[in-house]
Amino acid sequence: MHAPAACKPFAARPQCAVRPRVDSTVQRHPTPLMKYLHTMVRVTDLDASLKFYRDALGLQEVRRSEHEAGRFTLVYLAAPGDEDAQIELTYNWDPEIYTGGRNFGHVAYAVPDIYAACQRLMDAGVTINRPPRDGRMAFVRSPDNISIELLQDGPALPPAEPWISMPNTGAW
Amino acid sequence: MHAPAACKPFAARPQCAVRPRVDSTVQRHPTPLMKYLHTMVRVTDLDASLKFYRDALGLQEVRRSEHEAGRFTLVYLAAPGDEDAQIELTYNWDPEIYTGGRNFGHVAYAVPDIYAACQRLMDAGVTINRPPRDGRMAFVRSPDNISIELLQDGPALPPAEPWISMPNTGAW
Repeated sequence: MHAPAACKPFAARPQCAVRPRVDSTVQRHPTPLMKYLHTMVRVTDLDASLKFYRDALGLQEVRRSEHEAGRFTLVYLAAPGDEDAQIELTYNWDPEIYTGGRNFGHVAYAVPDIYAACQRLMDAGVTINRPPRDGRMAFVRSPDNISIELLQDGPALPPAEPWISMPNTGAW
Repeated sequence: MHAPAACKPFAARPQCAVRPRVDSTVQRHPTPLMKYLHTMVRVTDLDASLKFYRDALGLQEVRRSEHEAGRFTLVYLAAPGDEDAQIELTYNWDPEIYTGGRNFGHVAYAVPDIYAACQRLMDAGVTINRPPRDGRMAFVRSPDNISIELLQDGPALPPAEPWISMPNTGAW
């Protein structure tokens, strides 16, 4: 995309040190012209959602706004140190029921210790739908059935119990 | 999240210059322990999806993998210069029909010129469901009905035609 002269593009951002999942042949632009902000999900219970996304998954609340006129609250969460890539929780004050759809798949995060991440989720009462039997990948679901993928950063951890013996539960 | 000694955390990443949407009171961790990777969506037509996400929206393909055994293709796209935050397209070789659900809301990107972004989408035949009448915000949908929010980076642009007169179309 060409940025017209009248338009102020994003300030140049320093290259990040860790880009393990990107093809090194891709051309890098010194000045991003477009930028990922967030993935928005709707939540029926804000407290239960914060227990999941913040307390169990480990994200941090970075911003919140209450909208009296529209009767909704927005809560933005991000991994600590990775505040640019956010998940936006939309909580409508008037109750709604949210079903899932197959066009949306999941939101994925890399974690430094997938066993520790899954243990903390389990301790919070979250079902590990796809346990990290391979030391590499796990899936859980939010209270509103949003699928979250956890991927071990770097090489897989050595297989370990209780994960090796833990069966899959449901779909993800 | 505490990283156990045995676990190798992510290398420290330089702070990014542009963080306009983050509360400055949030504590910054020098070493991210967890990191957003991607939002995955399923697509029924890979060519149509690349025309939307790559050619019309302006994302760039950063990685692709074909999985013969599982009969699926994964294509990772990101805004040029923002390769860390990706969208993953899952294309299953055996046809499926994907419905939407209300628990997932949208994926949002900031753009340097929301009018130019919407014009390019329109030129590619994409309906602007929520035109940027305010010079600030627009919504479109992917061929599989994934809602994409576009937000003007920085202050709103001055209101301009044809956007001022363009009505909403459908939901987003």
